[in-house]
Amino acid sequence: MANPSLLILPGDGIGPEVMAEVRKVIDWFGSQGTPFDVSEDLVGGAAYDAHGTPLTDATMAKAQEVDAVLLGAVGGPKYDDLDFSVKPERGLLRLRKEMDLFANLRPAQCFDALADFSSLKKDVVAGLDIMIVRELTSGVYFGEPRGIVTENNERVGINTQRYTESEIERVARSAFELARKRGNKLCSMEKANVMESGILWREVVQRVGDEEYPDVELSHMYADAGAMQLTRWPKQFDVIVTDNLFGDLLSDLAAMLTGSLGMLPSASLGLPMANGRPKAMYEPVHGSAPDIAGQGKANPIACILSFAMALRYSFDMGEAADRVEAAVEKVLADGLRTADLLGEEGRAPVSTSDMGDAIVAAL
Amino acid sequence: MANPSLLILPGDGIGPEVMAEVRKVIDWFGSQGTPFDVSEDLVGGAAYDAHGTPLTDATMAKAQEVDAVLLGAVGGPKYDDLDFSVKPERGLLRLRKEMDLFANLRPAQCFDALADFSSLKKDVVAGLDIMIVRELTSGVYFGEPRGIVTENNERVGINTQRYTESEIERVARSAFELARKRGNKLCSMEKANVMESGILWREVVQRVGDEEYPDVELSHMYADAGAMQLTRWPKQFDVIVTDNLFGDLLSDLAAMLTGSLGMLPSASLGLPMANGRPKAMYEPVHGSAPDIAGQGKANPIACILSFAMALRYSFDMGEAADRVEAAVEKVLADGLRTADLLGEEGRAPVSTSDMGDAIVAAL
Ligand SMILES: CC(C)[C@H](C(=O)O)[C@@H](O)C(=O)O
Ligand SMILES: CC(C)[C@H](C(=O)O)[C@@H](O)C(=O)O
Repeated sequence: MANPSLLILPGDGIGPEVMAEVRKVIDWFGSQGTPFDVSEDLVGGAAYDAHGTPLTDATMAKAQEVDAVLLGAVGGPKYDDLDFSVKPERGLLRLRKEMDLFANLRPAQCFDALADFSSLKKDVVAGLDIMIVRELTSGVYFGEPRGIVTENNERVGINTQRYTESEIERVARSAFELARKRGNKLCSMEKANVMESGILWREVVQRVGDEEYPDVELSHMYADAGAMQLTRWPKQFDVIVTDNLFGDLLSDLAAMLTGSLGMLPSASLGLPMANGRPKAMYEPVHGSAPDIAGQGKANPIACILSFAMALRYSFDMGEAADRVEAAVEKVLADGLRTADLLGEEGRAPVSTSDMGDAIVAAL
Repeated sequence: MANPSLLILPGDGIGPEVMAEVRKVIDWFGSQGTPFDVSEDLVGGAAYDAHGTPLTDATMAKAQEVDAVLLGAVGGPKYDDLDFSVKPERGLLRLRKEMDLFANLRPAQCFDALADFSSLKKDVVAGLDIMIVRELTSGVYFGEPRGIVTENNERVGINTQRYTESEIERVARSAFELARKRGNKLCSMEKANVMESGILWREVVQRVGDEEYPDVELSHMYADAGAMQLTRWPKQFDVIVTDNLFGDLLSDLAAMLTGSLGMLPSASLGLPMANGRPKAMYEPVHGSAPDIAGQGKANPIACILSFAMALRYSFDMGEAADRVEAAVEKVLADGLRTADLLGEEGRAPVSTSDMGDAIVAAL
């Protein structure tokens, strides 16, 4: 059988730095007899600088062929004034859409060693481990009509929230499946009190639950109440499923609760390919952090843990994933911290590269 | 001159209980030579039960005539299965829309006496005092087309986000004006990296700032980053302006940060009427809390502080408003707590009615 194939798209800002550390982990697996076929290409502002587009058709085609894509981060102030159609984000959104990566898994996990680092009280977040499943290929991100038009002599900005029953069904199933492997509890969030798309969302999730997952404890919450409850007592949740836009806000909120933002990975999964593996892209939850790019300050852990998610969800290598995660916990327990993980205590930070080396050593 | 007129709409759940305490405060002002003309009517589920609609045309007409509306809360599980068009929330949304209450002011303030009650660390929230200005009459709450339609043999839920330049301008002005009276700092939040309506939002807010409020420090943030930053270090903000849907989530999040949810009022303001007063509705940020309704457990402070906002924003009675706010701080400093404000410490809670009486006594 061919080696598993990976396309690495480091992107912008700290993307290339953190991805360099992931390469070390991939190489370590190669040295242990599990080689990956790795190719690398441009996305986001980096692709725009080289080709005038945030994702070339050739890169898109490659992404469709590999077993999994690893993406760093896209965007930066340098690209703020670009036309909407070529902004760095469009590259990322095109990958999500054309690969049909409808289920975005965003674990919000509080690492013991970092519980003090949260802005929340320790008892509120210590041991926190929730999973947000965000719909990623539809909703207001992609709905038509959209744009800025002129009506009655003034401009009007328009976007459309659209969800079909089958779009809701498939992401609901992903969330129910995950719930079964975890605490067997799913909470679905929308604004059914205000939006008809939320009414349909609630109804379809309920029906999928009743018909296919009666064993999973299902509840519904308005997204505003969800934001409150996540802030008040996040441990009440196990798996949360929500739409693209609410998922964007709520998963960032949940990530920030943990105090471990530079630590959090994500997986975006689609339908199975011919080889049985799902279409998949893995990326850290953090952004491109242009303010610290190129200074060796970035934390590579989120990106390394994204590779661990690839091992688990794309390659069915759960033990290898556990091993990477254990290595990360070990270096944290040993007291290693990149700059983002340091509070007032005056410990010296380790560089991006030293953190990567330490994790490889711990493997 | 005629007495200032108020329409009281207690609504559902704990609405009537908390409003009864506001009446005591209003009566106290009457006894001191500042009488209000008060009428009362139904909204939400209560109106549906009586009239088959969450807001009758007659009530709507009254709301248009008075100087200010005070609303309790709407909704409850009893009404969950009602058709969307007659859900309790539609009554509230009709009031907002037909009175054209475009600027929703939601202060998120941490009361000293309650700082411990937040799920956030004390230093993160003590002294917090931010103001969220949420656009309230447009966006995805009201945009057309909307509904659930059938396409290709399946149902599709549709809502439309729409913002015109003038809608953005007017709420931006409200926010800039408030910023000038406060810390002179405004942060505008949208998803301009993904939504064209966000691009227009950002551009218009920037233009209003450049042309009319160059003295106010203006910044922009993506709404997901906003959710993060509110969680991480909310004191970085002074005034935040954002659209209807983001405002719904972000203001609830901000409210929860303070640990003082049962304490937080809001004002919804529109254009000036013939008498110079703005169209206005005041309501607590908390919901109808059906689980504790009718038990004397509800905290009337948010609703009483909403009346204080009415004194300030509708009746130009800033000193009277200060007086109500001081009375609230006094009873809190005296240790009075309704059940929602009690942690583990085993103090006995005071009832809704006792809290109202104590505040009147403190006046
Ligand atoms: C970069 C941006 C387009 C993206 C999004 O809004 O989805 C990001 O915030 C995310 O959550 O992955
Ligand atoms: C009750 C509901 C319709 C309302 C909203 O979504 O605006 C509420 O959540 C609010 O924030 O006032």
